[in-house]
Amino acid sequence: MQNHRWLRTPEGTTPRISFGADYNPDQWPREVWDEDVRLMKQAGVDVVSVAIFSWAKLQPGPDTWNFEWLDEVIDLMHANGIGVDLATATASPPPWLTTAHPEVLPVTAEGNVLSQGARQHWRPTSPVFREHALALVTKLAERYGSHPGIVAWHVNNELGCHNAYDYSDDAANAFRAWLIERYETIDGLNFAWGTAFWSQRYGSFDEILPPRLAASFPNPTQQLDFLRFSSDALIDHLTAERDVLNRITPDIPVTTNFMVVGETRHLDYDKMAREIDFVSNDHYVVEGRDELAFSASLTSGFARHRPWFLMEHSTSAVNWQPINRPKRPGELIRDSLTHVAHGADAVCYFQWRQSAAGAEKFHSSMIPHGGEDTRVYRDVVKLGGILQSLGDVVGSDRARADVAIVFDWEAWRGAELDSHPSEKLNYRREALEWFTALTELGIRVDVVPSAMDLDGYRLVIAPVLYAVPASLRDKLTAFVEGGGHLVTTYFSGIADENDHIWLGGYPGAFREMLGIRVEEFRPLWEDETVALSNGTTGSLWSEPIDIASDDVEVLLSYENEEELGAAVTRRPVGSGSAAYVSTRLGVAGLTHLLPALLEGAGVESELPAALRGKVELVTREGEGGRFEFYINRTDSFVDLPEGDYLYGATTLAPRGVAVRRA
Amino acid sequence: MQNHRWLRTPEGTTPRISFGADYNPDQWPREVWDEDVRLMKQAGVDVVSVAIFSWAKLQPGPDTWNFEWLDEVIDLMHANGIGVDLATATASPPPWLTTAHPEVLPVTAEGNVLSQGARQHWRPTSPVFREHALALVTKLAERYGSHPGIVAWHVNNELGCHNAYDYSDDAANAFRAWLIERYETIDGLNFAWGTAFWSQRYGSFDEILPPRLAASFPNPTQQLDFLRFSSDALIDHLTAERDVLNRITPDIPVTTNFMVVGETRHLDYDKMAREIDFVSNDHYVVEGRDELAFSASLTSGFARHRPWFLMEHSTSAVNWQPINRPKRPGELIRDSLTHVAHGADAVCYFQWRQSAAGAEKFHSSMIPHGGEDTRVYRDVVKLGGILQSLGDVVGSDRARADVAIVFDWEAWRGAELDSHPSEKLNYRREALEWFTALTELGIRVDVVPSAMDLDGYRLVIAPVLYAVPASLRDKLTAFVEGGGHLVTTYFSGIADENDHIWLGGYPGAFREMLGIRVEEFRPLWEDETVALSNGTTGSLWSEPIDIASDDVEVLLSYENEEELGAAVTRRPVGSGSAAYVSTRLGVAGLTHLLPALLEGAGVESELPAALRGKVELVTREGEGGRFEFYINRTDSFVDLPEGDYLYGATTLAPRGVAVRRA
Amino acid sequence: MQNHRWLRTPEGTTPRISFGADYNPDQWPREVWDEDVRLMKQAGVDVVSVAIFSWAKLQPGPDTWNFEWLDEVIDLMHANGIGVDLATATASPPPWLTTAHPEVLPVTAEGNVLSQGARQHWRPTSPVFREHALALVTKLAERYGSHPGIVAWHVNNELGCHNAYDYSDDAANAFRAWLIERYETIDGLNFAWGTAFWSQRYGSFDEILPPRLAASFPNPTQQLDFLRFSSDALIDHLTAERDVLNRITPDIPVTTNFMVVGETRHLDYDKMAREIDFVSNDHYVVEGRDELAFSASLTSGFARHRPWFLMEHSTSAVNWQPINRPKRPGELIRDSLTHVAHGADAVCYFQWRQSAAGAEKFHSSMIPHGGEDTRVYRDVVKLGGILQSLGDVVGSDRARADVAIVFDWEAWRGAELDSHPSEKLNYRREALEWFTALTELGIRVDVVPSAMDLDGYRLVIAPVLYAVPASLRDKLTAFVEGGGHLVTTYFSGIADENDHIWLGGYPGAFREMLGIRVEEFRPLWEDETVALSNGTTGSLWSEPIDIASDDVEVLLSYENEEELGAAVTRRPVGSGSAAYVSTRLGVAGLTHLLPALLEGAGVESELPAALRGKVELVTREGEGGRFEFYINRTDSFVDLPEGDYLYGATTLAPRGVAVRRA
Repeated sequence: MQNHRWLRTPEGTTPRISFGADYNPDQWPREVWDEDVRLMKQAGVDVVSVAIFSWAKLQPGPDTWNFEWLDEVIDLMHANGIGVDLATATASPPPWLTTAHPEVLPVTAEGNVLSQGARQHWRPTSPVFREHALALVTKLAERYGSHPGIVAWHVNNELGCHNAYDYSDDAANAFRAWLIERYETIDGLNFAWGTAFWSQRYGSFDEILPPRLAASFPNPTQQLDFLRFSSDALIDHLTAERDVLNRITPDIPVTTNFMVVGETRHLDYDKMAREIDFVSNDHYVVEGRDELAFSASLTSGFARHRPWFLMEHSTSAVNWQPINRPKRPGELIRDSLTHVAHGADAVCYFQWRQSAAGAEKFHSSMIPHGGEDTRVYRDVVKLGGILQSLGDVVGSDRARADVAIVFDWEAWRGAELDSHPSEKLNYRREALEWFTALTELGIRVDVVPSAMDLDGYRLVIAPVLYAVPASLRDKLTAFVEGGGHLVTTYFSGIADENDHIWLGGYPGAFREMLGIRVEEFRPLWEDETVALSNGTTGSLWSEPIDIASDDVEVLLSYENEEELGAAVTRRPVGSGSAAYVSTRLGVAGLTHLLPALLEGAGVESELPAALRGKVELVTREGEGGRFEFYINRTDSFVDLPEGDYLYGATTLAPRGVAVRRA
Repeated sequence: MQNHRWLRTPEGTTPRISFGADYNPDQWPREVWDEDVRLMKQAGVDVVSVAIFSWAKLQPGPDTWNFEWLDEVIDLMHANGIGVDLATATASPPPWLTTAHPEVLPVTAEGNVLSQGARQHWRPTSPVFREHALALVTKLAERYGSHPGIVAWHVNNELGCHNAYDYSDDAANAFRAWLIERYETIDGLNFAWGTAFWSQRYGSFDEILPPRLAASFPNPTQQLDFLRFSSDALIDHLTAERDVLNRITPDIPVTTNFMVVGETRHLDYDKMAREIDFVSNDHYVVEGRDELAFSASLTSGFARHRPWFLMEHSTSAVNWQPINRPKRPGELIRDSLTHVAHGADAVCYFQWRQSAAGAEKFHSSMIPHGGEDTRVYRDVVKLGGILQSLGDVVGSDRARADVAIVFDWEAWRGAELDSHPSEKLNYRREALEWFTALTELGIRVDVVPSAMDLDGYRLVIAPVLYAVPASLRDKLTAFVEGGGHLVTTYFSGIADENDHIWLGGYPGAFREMLGIRVEEFRPLWEDETVALSNGTTGSLWSEPIDIASDDVEVLLSYENEEELGAAVTRRPVGSGSAAYVSTRLGVAGLTHLLPALLEGAGVESELPAALRGKVELVTREGEGGRFEFYINRTDSFVDLPEGDYLYGATTLAPRGVAVRRA
Repeated sequence: MQNHRWLRTPEGTTPRISFGADYNPDQWPREVWDEDVRLMKQAGVDVVSVAIFSWAKLQPGPDTWNFEWLDEVIDLMHANGIGVDLATATASPPPWLTTAHPEVLPVTAEGNVLSQGARQHWRPTSPVFREHALALVTKLAERYGSHPGIVAWHVNNELGCHNAYDYSDDAANAFRAWLIERYETIDGLNFAWGTAFWSQRYGSFDEILPPRLAASFPNPTQQLDFLRFSSDALIDHLTAERDVLNRITPDIPVTTNFMVVGETRHLDYDKMAREIDFVSNDHYVVEGRDELAFSASLTSGFARHRPWFLMEHSTSAVNWQPINRPKRPGELIRDSLTHVAHGADAVCYFQWRQSAAGAEKFHSSMIPHGGEDTRVYRDVVKLGGILQSLGDVVGSDRARADVAIVFDWEAWRGAELDSHPSEKLNYRREALEWFTALTELGIRVDVVPSAMDLDGYRLVIAPVLYAVPASLRDKLTAFVEGGGHLVTTYFSGIADENDHIWLGGYPGAFREMLGIRVEEFRPLWEDETVALSNGTTGSLWSEPIDIASDDVEVLLSYENEEELGAAVTRRPVGSGSAAYVSTRLGVAGLTHLLPALLEGAGVESELPAALRGKVELVTREGEGGRFEFYINRTDSFVDLPEGDYLYGATTLAPRGVAVRRA
């Protein structure tokens, strides 16, 4: 994403926030298609993703192709002003392929083969699969590259959703090649992996395997490298398809849909985002207050705050959780607009028409089983209208906040490896709790990848930053010395990029900057809490902090804990400061602590006091102006300031959204 | 079971309720056999099942046979007036067979092989196993077909208890053949399975596999068909053995023991019952109030209310539950007589003498480890006497009740597939709760398979009838229009026989009849309840019901739930009515609701008010008269009406039973 | 361990309690070694275990050897007066070996292979592994046998920690050979395994497999024999290495480190102890009050109360539990000295210097990540000084107590097999609760293997002694008749060595001696308790006891349980007595019951009343005198009697220890 390229649109088109869905006409009789067009136009749909799971229909056998139906679909859409985001259709191989080539099927760590019958049963590293997939992509690019109805290429689908970790022999071969590139010599690998431990020294790269089922804890650096490799293997598949597309259809932008949601962490999306023309994301509501906003903000970070494409979300219930609850009134519109607030310039659903058969038939869609005379479809039509009223927003960036939370894939992977002080540690939850606490205080916050430039932020929070290469340590040190204010927490600065401990006392990489030293971690039992001097409590983790520098200020102490002392510290460094939080404070505790940290960094809420916590404020800014999104986080009415509202008004309904020109 | 054929008995024998056990003399020294005969006669035993797990003893090697011990056992039994229900001994293959032919071993969905060392480690579809099993059956039939001591053939044992689902290549081959028979063309299958979804379109039947371990949710119709196929594969084994037996010994009736108990659902027993001369069942006490009566009533339904054989139950504790509790005083006799009340004309146990070794040595039996001087054996002797006093009951049918609960294998399989609105939904529990609530109100109720004729029932309850082919929809509609009263519940009428949704709004198949329409399901969180207008609560599930017809009566509404309205509705249809319950009411809630439904259907309790809920009333009726069984559901004494008692009297002990001639 | 042989020491050395650690210099740069020596001397270290996981470094390829670094390490240690306990380095095979010979990798019961990448991925029965391991041992013995710095051989490491149960074809072959030795004929095996049950009769040993994944419960005697075989296979590996060492270096004693801790039960350590010169143990703090003392006492039992070597424990937190808590102040020293009290004459840690990389880098050590300026290292130095002050204790035996708890591997294995009355039964927990209750009452107690001579004990407690061969029954009967007092509990005396029930009523083997008879077990639901006549409660289990002899005294009865009567009985037998406890009393209940049992046996506490329960008293006795260890079990100060203290004084700190010459 060196150069942001958005959907192709015919010249002279009024900018609009695109609206649509995955569209699977191949699952319905022809007569339904005309009905679809009528309803799409009624709802204001202008973009659909087509052919995502159509491989078996497009290529019914090794040498048989069937494109006529797709020709007709694309023509039909184009004739009705609906752009097609055309999938490369490689997401799931057809039965004839896995029958002829069972060697494309993924293998689990235990050695069991993942069979056909569901979806995404292919090894990312299979040469056979790659060959067949690229042949299909080539056919599609050649046939549709010149069709004016194609607005973008949609590579594969949710890469790695089910096949991220493959332990097959193909994977072993590719892993070895990846390791040779990373380490060059076997001695380099032996050092990085610490193979002197447990008699693991390798004589050559040929002896290396993925971390298959083992008798005890597999080598942690091997595990880390396998996670990195598995991500790179999927990115390699993406770029292989992209290269075919770029070669044949250089004018059509290429994207693929991320899954920035919940605990999904198999892919390094910041790295992946660099390989496509614009970021797309699939987001489904999962447990966790403010999780949607957090994920949308992080997606925006991957997009470097440029507009992105919300490729999938749901109008109501999904089908894959243990209990699938429909959305409450207002949530359909609020959820979509929250993504828009965080930078989405396209709002699409999975899927247009609810399936009558198959594994996802209880997943909601724009047209439910009940048809057009339903609450869901009426809300969809309403949303279509709202999006058309937000044309001025299109193309604007998400405006940078004063506060950033660093969210780092390497820290996430590293912090949750096995044989650590506590298996209860949850990297993402800690970051999300900081996000929620800031939102409770009415503070706008960006969630940013560690590779992003931090200049301009007043306060940067880097929770549980376990893995810290020297370069990242230096970057954060420079940020602080240059006047920035940094907060980090327990289990940060522990290891380098090889998962080797920064020796001398914790948090090794930041010990000097923070002016403290920790000798041992003291994780807490599952239901245990520790009292703090301001009346709040810590959970999950605690640490006895030794103060190593006279200028360290103790912001919070442990109470009644003979073995513990300071809990939260801050030290002036250069023209900035570095603070440390040694326990999990949770949203309530953070809401108590944050005012002092914010004040120290000179950050104030942009909201009137009465609105803080009740609404989430998100701002976009571009040539068309500056736009404030007010998102009601409560089930009550909220009064907003007067102003020029593109959507909504000063009385904000429960779960409602308003957009004001600032 | 086109023609009900009961045990062979010598001419002139007085009819009696048969009494006995699985008898395994091959596990004991010869001198114990004489002791066995003495005690059997003391206890009134007149039938035993022999040789169930004797394959390895009968055929110690591929070409070696050893029948002398069995000759002696059968002669000994016959000489002492004890009939032999002779097993075909094919339940578990001997080690020499699995050593020579490991290809008979079942394979799990993950691809792991089930090894020897326990029991039932054979593929139902293995040609090799089939050949060896039928050779053994032929030998037994030829040798014992003319022995007057044989009263029935006992095919195999608890078919599918451990090997119901086999994913081997043999299974794949047989599954393909089954699918060709069902669908004829691959297009037919592609339509039924909805393979346009997720790129699953098959080019030929050769590409199809069982639903082995997959990366995501396997195709639901494939799953359903695999469940159906797996049941049919076991039934095919049954009929293969039966055909050998019928050919060689046409005069000896053939049965096999079902497992109608708890969650056991691998076999379609209503289909299976059609292939044997009389129904047999194994029942063990599992969790769930009234579960025993419910299962016995359902067994009677499979037997079309003709007498059936209780082939196995326990005198006290079993060995296979996490915690195995012995029966309390009275329960041994009460449990047995409850089965008799529901139609059992034979009462047998697993097993005669408690094992000293092996996996089931802590399973209770008629002769415990402690020998004859034990409470269990004394109760056994007492029960033998009681059964002899009930001779008049023999041959009578279970008398039809006014109320029926439809229990349907297709609905059970379909309703609990994955990727549904709630994984907490439990088909059987819902049916059982209706059964218990009716019993609490003193109402007799039949549990009937959906294939049974519903004529004559006033009220039919069809809970969670998820899967509804057009024929079943028409049958129920005709029932209502003909004056019947139907109640159905949440998640009913959803899909057809291909698991395709009945479109247009839920409950599709019954929407018009019920005069309602539901757009979305609203399953409840695990501990969540919703308040109802009569003060009871719903759990598990809720639905916002739209009333689509003016003549719909709202019986119950949701309270304080802004998004919900009517909870229970009823609509007059033809000369009957159709009611709908949109949440799980549980036993307490159903007990509140049912009086209105019963009154509408003109159903009244046959019990005096003081006895309702305290006793379960079950009635049998035949040439010998009409017999009322009063079963004490409480731990207190209960006063019964005066009358002619075959067993018991007007004072019913805690956990006691009395039988009155009506 | 026919002849106890301790570490080699230079003549004229003052006896001392050895002190040290696993030392892995091969994981650190050369310059660190000199720092190590400086700190070892500062801490008083005089012994280190070297090369445990150095195979890959010592033998980098099939024909390449690299001993120079080890030469230097040993010389360096020796030059500084630090003895080397030299490992045979066979604990974990190097990658080149498993690459060339994947057939050495263990296989799970499900058939999955345990891959390389962690440690101990070798089949105990692999001829290929054995050959390579013994070649390495031979090389080491030849090279270092004459080095004066070697004080002992350390065979392999924690045998069976991860590879105890292997179901491979190698294991199948070895299992058959083991069974032929045990049973001689296949008829003998068929009888012992009870194969008449479930058609399991074997025609020859060739048909036998390990109890791999089966369709149902595998044969229990097969399971038992596989557990025994698996233990013997590991012992066979030990003796194979030992025989090489004894042949080449007859003067150097041989040991291997046990894992007597928590639920670790894969090896019969009492059998294993007979094969080595002195017992070594690895112990880590796990859940369970007094677990450390219990395990140390049992270790002393395996050592027949002669001194043993504490080969591994931790200075603070470990890394392999779900939540790894550091030790509290005082615990480092208290834990070590508790082992000394129970007979340890050497105190070593895993490990000397905390790893910077690898799977155990968060495991504490003598030199933490923080270096020498840490609380842990300062405590280590302090402990080194204390151990030097206890020189008089060296070589003394652990003094026999009046009370013994029999802890029996066969009972443990047998009692917890599947398909038993309750899967909640926990053999070790019951034994530990008796230990804690006795300690609460201030009574010293020995935990002894059943093979130990019981002469001299007044009271022997044999909880849950499920498996009782006739010889053990006779031994315990003789003990009682000779004046001993025996207590046994629920689920004791049930089966013989073949897991065949002792018929006639429970507890079969002891029924006559106890004068009682139990017909059925009545296990309790998970949270259920039963009230007892003294106000305490039972849990887990209950039994209705029939009194069969007039001289049986009922010590406790069940309250309010209609079906139950006596709960605890005692009967005079010969000049002793035999008592029976039919429920789990727990520590509180046992503390109430024990005074009566102790009084009957004439056992009194050796502690002043004020100290009982507050301190654990352990006594050692030898040529140097008699030494009382007082271990503070509380978090408060405790006043001790005046006397001659080798360490500590009359005021005992929280979690402190004092050693008095008696």
